[in-house]
Amino acid sequence: MDIKIEHNKNLKVKPDQSNLGFGKYFTDHMFIMDYKNGAWCDARIIPYAPLELDPAVMVLHYGQAVFEGLKCYRAKGGGLNLFRPEKNFERLNKSDERLCIPQLDVDFAIKSLKELIKIDESWVPSEPGTSLYIRPFVIATEIGVGVHPSSEYMFIIILSPVGAYYKEGLNPVKICIENEYVRAVRGGIGFTKATANYASSLKGQEKAKGLGYSQVLWLDGVERKYIEEVGTMNVFFKIGGEVITPELNGSILPGITRDSVIEMLRVHGIKVVERKIAVSEIFEAAREGKLEEAFGTGTAAVISPIGEFSMGGEKVSINNGKIGSLSQKLYDNLTGVQYGAIEDHFNWITTIDMHV
Amino acid sequence: MDIKIEHNKNLKVKPDQSNLGFGKYFTDHMFIMDYKNGAWCDARIIPYAPLELDPAVMVLHYGQAVFEGLKCYRAKGGGLNLFRPEKNFERLNKSDERLCIPQLDVDFAIKSLKELIKIDESWVPSEPGTSLYIRPFVIATEIGVGVHPSSEYMFIIILSPVGAYYKEGLNPVKICIENEYVRAVRGGIGFTKATANYASSLKGQEKAKGLGYSQVLWLDGVERKYIEEVGTMNVFFKIGGEVITPELNGSILPGITRDSVIEMLRVHGIKVVERKIAVSEIFEAAREGKLEEAFGTGTAAVISPIGEFSMGGEKVSINNGKIGSLSQKLYDNLTGVQYGAIEDHFNWITTIDMHV
Repeated sequence: MDIKIEHNKNLKVKPDQSNLGFGKYFTDHMFIMDYKNGAWCDARIIPYAPLELDPAVMVLHYGQAVFEGLKCYRAKGGGLNLFRPEKNFERLNKSDERLCIPQLDVDFAIKSLKELIKIDESWVPSEPGTSLYIRPFVIATEIGVGVHPSSEYMFIIILSPVGAYYKEGLNPVKICIENEYVRAVRGGIGFTKATANYASSLKGQEKAKGLGYSQVLWLDGVERKYIEEVGTMNVFFKIGGEVITPELNGSILPGITRDSVIEMLRVHGIKVVERKIAVSEIFEAAREGKLEEAFGTGTAAVISPIGEFSMGGEKVSINNGKIGSLSQKLYDNLTGVQYGAIEDHFNWITTIDMHV
Repeated sequence: MDIKIEHNKNLKVKPDQSNLGFGKYFTDHMFIMDYKNGAWCDARIIPYAPLELDPAVMVLHYGQAVFEGLKCYRAKGGGLNLFRPEKNFERLNKSDERLCIPQLDVDFAIKSLKELIKIDESWVPSEPGTSLYIRPFVIATEIGVGVHPSSEYMFIIILSPVGAYYKEGLNPVKICIENEYVRAVRGGIGFTKATANYASSLKGQEKAKGLGYSQVLWLDGVERKYIEEVGTMNVFFKIGGEVITPELNGSILPGITRDSVIEMLRVHGIKVVERKIAVSEIFEAAREGKLEEAFGTGTAAVISPIGEFSMGGEKVSINNGKIGSLSQKLYDNLTGVQYGAIEDHFNWITTIDMHV
């Protein structure tokens, strides 16, 4: 399929790179492709502008929508790096499958993304720690208020220059363990990036925020004792020299940063075990002085060290609230690969060639 | 707050009343109210038209959206009846609360709805069994892709003339009991009309449809043995003269038709018990010949008799696949009240006065 291109004639003034924040500014163009009559069609790059959506489009009534999040990095030397983009579009297809949305061609999606970034190349920031956040998403656009899978969709990619997540070094966060609200349950859609999962997470996040915590740690929906994930991140613990992380049980997101961390640790000869982790085990390890480090992994923060856990009245501090050496090393190595400062032994980087 | 009114100058040709279907046609106007700077504002009735939504509005990314469904009936004599509309807007507020969406003024919402229906009064169909389906909904409209509750919303009401649910008498449906996919779990958002709940239900519905069943019956997410609800309906059983229905446990929708059926049965001296119901209990009652009737309740169908349940290889037929006398009586009485053919002893009807 060809991609039609309509250039924006009213380019925006770009925001200050030192104050981008996250997901607040959007570039001059967007990619859109429609699904109609059983096929994806009409791939186009057009000026970023409001969508015209009938008030009865299904996404607004039955939440049939999925998304992805990845980044484009301005590499040393000026080039453009994508980090494992095929993993994001493969996961988008898994989300699509669970939400009854038709599959996308991964290669064509990546090709489309590259074309879009090339057109908005001047938006990829270059200040340390900045990047271009990429948001591909699919929404159900059939008009009608009967509950059934939509027959029409839009696949859209928008781009947002984002600031450094840590402006003053990696600052460990305080996490509140949620034992009232539940994010997802096995048999449900917790493993997908369905928009629905985020809707149901808002209340717990707000509760944690109200108690002075920056993120919420979710427990499993069945027994409410096993650790699932932290806010919008997967979670890792280093206990007695061994790294553990919750297994992919169907209700947590199979994070791409999670997968990269596991691979990186194994290559470096550090044991990583994916298994069920009871929250009591973490508190016990902390009491015994064996909880050495804890950190979240995700596209936005890459590695987010955790300095404190709290549940009910009980609190545990980790590494005296300071970042651990493994967390720092993983952050340095991952961002090193992403920004092209460290050789990409893993073959994780896809470069965007501006001259093709 | 005043409601600004802009009349549509390009009225649509109305569809044939004998072939309306469900939720396919929409009237000439819609009601919209914005939430900005901490308050609902700019209430307006305007021509039905596409919404202009930035591609980064939060509803499209984090599914922060809720809705309601109710009907306006053309009464005997030509008047317009609403069925317990205050219950719908009170429930909308409960959904809002769980989804971190600001509360609505119930009285103002009903006043706005009445104004809208008065303007589109000619769209309320009069053929037997037809009605005007009302879809109030709230969507998050802040622009940005960070996960947090939106600071801006739109509250919208659209109207759709709908056909008779049963064209040829009440036909019992075949129901498939789902034991792989889960709709909701306690601690989650199952009790709300969040759009997210419907997104996660699509796969199970499609599976049931593929097996030749018209609806899916959901089991609880924890033990996967207790009955929750049927597709988009609550469910009732008549066993040995007693009527039972799953209790409101936080993961099923507190249906307004459900509530009305319970009240109606109690007034008629029929015992109704709200409690946990194991699916094994239903199969056992069927084997013992004690399962007299089963039916779903909801706004669309009012009463939907169930003729067969299936789980794995096991099937039970109810009342030889014919509608039971209680199901028929409840349907006749409820629709009788709704269409004004039976006196409204319950005070359930709100009339719309065209002359005020």
